[in-house]
Amino acid sequence: MDAKTPSPDGDLIARFAAIVGPDYALRDDAAIAPFLIEPRNKFHGATPLVLRPGTVEEVAAILRLANETGTAIVPQSGNTGVVGGQVPDGSGSQVVLSMARLNRIREVDAAGDTMTAEAGVILADAHAAADAADRLFPLSLASEGSCRIGGNLSTNAGGTGVLAYGNTRDLVLGVEVALASGEVWNGLRKLRKDNTGYDLRDLFIGAEGTLGVITAAVLRLVPKPRGKSVALVGLKDPAAALGLFAIARRHAGRSLTAFELMPRIAIETVVRYVAGARDPIVGPHPWYVLFEVSSLRSEADAEMTVEAIFGEGFSDDLVEDGVQARSLEQAKAFWLLRDALSEVQKHEGGSIKHDVAVPQASVPELIERAGRAVEKVVPGCRPFPFGHLGDGNIHYNVTQPVGMDKTAYLARWDDVAEAVHAIVSDLGGTVSAEHGIGQLKRGLLREVKSPLEIEMMQRLKTAFDPKGILNPGKVL
Amino acid sequence: MDAKTPSPDGDLIARFAAIVGPDYALRDDAAIAPFLIEPRNKFHGATPLVLRPGTVEEVAAILRLANETGTAIVPQSGNTGVVGGQVPDGSGSQVVLSMARLNRIREVDAAGDTMTAEAGVILADAHAAADAADRLFPLSLASEGSCRIGGNLSTNAGGTGVLAYGNTRDLVLGVEVALASGEVWNGLRKLRKDNTGYDLRDLFIGAEGTLGVITAAVLRLVPKPRGKSVALVGLKDPAAALGLFAIARRHAGRSLTAFELMPRIAIETVVRYVAGARDPIVGPHPWYVLFEVSSLRSEADAEMTVEAIFGEGFSDDLVEDGVQARSLEQAKAFWLLRDALSEVQKHEGGSIKHDVAVPQASVPELIERAGRAVEKVVPGCRPFPFGHLGDGNIHYNVTQPVGMDKTAYLARWDDVAEAVHAIVSDLGGTVSAEHGIGQLKRGLLREVKSPLEIEMMQRLKTAFDPKGILNPGKVL
Repeated sequence: MDAKTPSPDGDLIARFAAIVGPDYALRDDAAIAPFLIEPRNKFHGATPLVLRPGTVEEVAAILRLANETGTAIVPQSGNTGVVGGQVPDGSGSQVVLSMARLNRIREVDAAGDTMTAEAGVILADAHAAADAADRLFPLSLASEGSCRIGGNLSTNAGGTGVLAYGNTRDLVLGVEVALASGEVWNGLRKLRKDNTGYDLRDLFIGAEGTLGVITAAVLRLVPKPRGKSVALVGLKDPAAALGLFAIARRHAGRSLTAFELMPRIAIETVVRYVAGARDPIVGPHPWYVLFEVSSLRSEADAEMTVEAIFGEGFSDDLVEDGVQARSLEQAKAFWLLRDALSEVQKHEGGSIKHDVAVPQASVPELIERAGRAVEKVVPGCRPFPFGHLGDGNIHYNVTQPVGMDKTAYLARWDDVAEAVHAIVSDLGGTVSAEHGIGQLKRGLLREVKSPLEIEMMQRLKTAFDPKGILNPGKVL
Repeated sequence: MDAKTPSPDGDLIARFAAIVGPDYALRDDAAIAPFLIEPRNKFHGATPLVLRPGTVEEVAAILRLANETGTAIVPQSGNTGVVGGQVPDGSGSQVVLSMARLNRIREVDAAGDTMTAEAGVILADAHAAADAADRLFPLSLASEGSCRIGGNLSTNAGGTGVLAYGNTRDLVLGVEVALASGEVWNGLRKLRKDNTGYDLRDLFIGAEGTLGVITAAVLRLVPKPRGKSVALVGLKDPAAALGLFAIARRHAGRSLTAFELMPRIAIETVVRYVAGARDPIVGPHPWYVLFEVSSLRSEADAEMTVEAIFGEGFSDDLVEDGVQARSLEQAKAFWLLRDALSEVQKHEGGSIKHDVAVPQASVPELIERAGRAVEKVVPGCRPFPFGHLGDGNIHYNVTQPVGMDKTAYLARWDDVAEAVHAIVSDLGGTVSAEHGIGQLKRGLLREVKSPLEIEMMQRLKTAFDPKGILNPGKVL
């Protein structure tokens, strides 16, 4: 899949530009720059042209011309991805297709619990539209103020709502897709049940724009919770947290809207660096869990469930100590401990990060084995594993040893990652739980997938993008 | 996709038989007969050979030989499908591959809330294994005593649990698939989050064995409800039922485990023909809804939610009258009214059935328009639409006019179906909500899908079964 696509010449660029009109065909360096910079500043791409179509027909016409001329197209929506999936390579031959102007919410169907949104709709705007109809669109991401639906679907985004509401894939009923050929597949179904042939929808979700360009989607809406209750508990080890999770699921089912595991070092780091943060539990504990229960009835009802989980956790000797938030302010203070984690690590120096998931029952083993493994690679390094225990999705981050040179530490990234990923693979896990493959993990893909699975993926790529014009150099 | 596969000769049959051994290669007419008869006795097939492999390796070897020799293979598990997907055609050239002996539950992982089951596991046995681990596997089908996991997945089975727990697709984390080439793809992942490339899993779910043969799956388990409460209410029309559904979802969310719509004729028919059945609500009402709420806490808690729904339904003038079950016996009596519906219709003569779904908000319009349409086709016919309002999945059955000759009525099946399906398509609905395409609806598929969508499906078929050996004559 590495065959280079030719650079579009001036004549071809003019033909592309004519599709969207001069105002929406960007060629000026300053205008193009924002489309080339990605959040972690890791991939430095180049492009002769950014196209900003305003209609699905324009998207289709762009792809038709690209397919005819063998021009590489890089779809981009909110440009918040962290694996380089949305930025062109450095060749200067790839045209960026910005979906941001396709930002209409075509319909909110409250009676049907659906919303039809175009690829360029900002996630927060989708939230607001659902809220106005007294519904919730439960995809919840840190970047929700700028990420867009097209990217959310193309990366099958995860986030904090997965435990209760599923991944993005589970929140989509139908999609509209512009194919490599320039044909538009209208799969905008609102159906809960439909068994008429192959599942084309899920083919495009999570494919990072390499099989087609999602232009719109029918999203599921759910009822809004009327109350929440949050608790923070201290525990001996991750195994105790896993035991508490089983109790919480039994009591709350899908009303368990968060179950986040944190090591002692996490609490300490937040308390040290975040103004106003404090440890609400007496005495240090090796591990902590923040969990949240939502209720469609009331806050009191959610509190009752949290108390039941607490009670059983104590009587089963899983919980050493804990505290339930008794006000919105307290709840916010608990959440601050968790939400600040990604940010505060930098104060302790370099951090080597892994976006991994394992079967939830294997989380304690992952933490134990990976802890030993990384210590061997960089003695004195400080494992900082935290995250969504209920999804098996642990942000296995490793902070540098105290006093070590940051650059020297980060130079060991690949060695540390190799050690962690080997254990993750051994446990039947994944090296990209949330962020996708993009450019960053493309090499890794061949190490963790069987040749047969890679070959199956290639068959799909060939079937849907025979000329390889869609986001080449990504995923496969 | 209609290219005929050659009939296997004696030598080839011996090679197939050698893979499974003589006891599991059935050639005798009497032994073969049960594999050729399907539930509705509509498709009469022939086969020279039924193979009953006992291991995944044997399945793979069978497919390898079939692919090498161009022999058509018809996978079959519980043989309960009603669209002819699991039986061979009449040519006598297709070999039946029975998955029934692959019936091991490989693992129940209670801490991980998963079960790994082979394709031949009977659904009821999967239920029992989940129950033994204090979990629920929530796929619920009338045929659960004989249908098997492989068929459940291959048809993406629906059933009564969809409203709360989703279709079969939503209950599967990973699959193991024997491909047409005889290679085995191990996709038995237990992960809640995994964004490493294309969604191969969902390609095989619902593909009716035409893209690969599912040999095993990782299934999701959920917590067991501790209590349920059931209510039956009378309403003016389907629009009122839709209004009540919105209230019920808002109060119960995914704890709303049933919401079934029934017309007056349904209640009357059951009361007339089923011993012990009675109408528990005073006075006839044009429409009825049976709804059920489950609780992870207790029966009393479920009852409280039902009361809240009731109260709001009354005060919003949506509910004319209603009654909540106050004992298990009463609950059973309510459910009898619903469960007997498929059976009792035969007492009133011929019934023309449609397995349709529309966006849930369009159910009232479907019922209204289809009622007028079928009356035009066969004056005096009696619409008998009932089913899962919350999924938009209405069993749009039409009972013959009183006194009409049954055969003469059923001869109008295609005309009635055409009228109903036209309205369903117009409403963005599907002509096969639950049962799939198989042989029965293969012709219909081309009428309801766009040529582009058919072509996209064909690309997948060609990519995964280039020689067309997997269940030819089904789906596409």
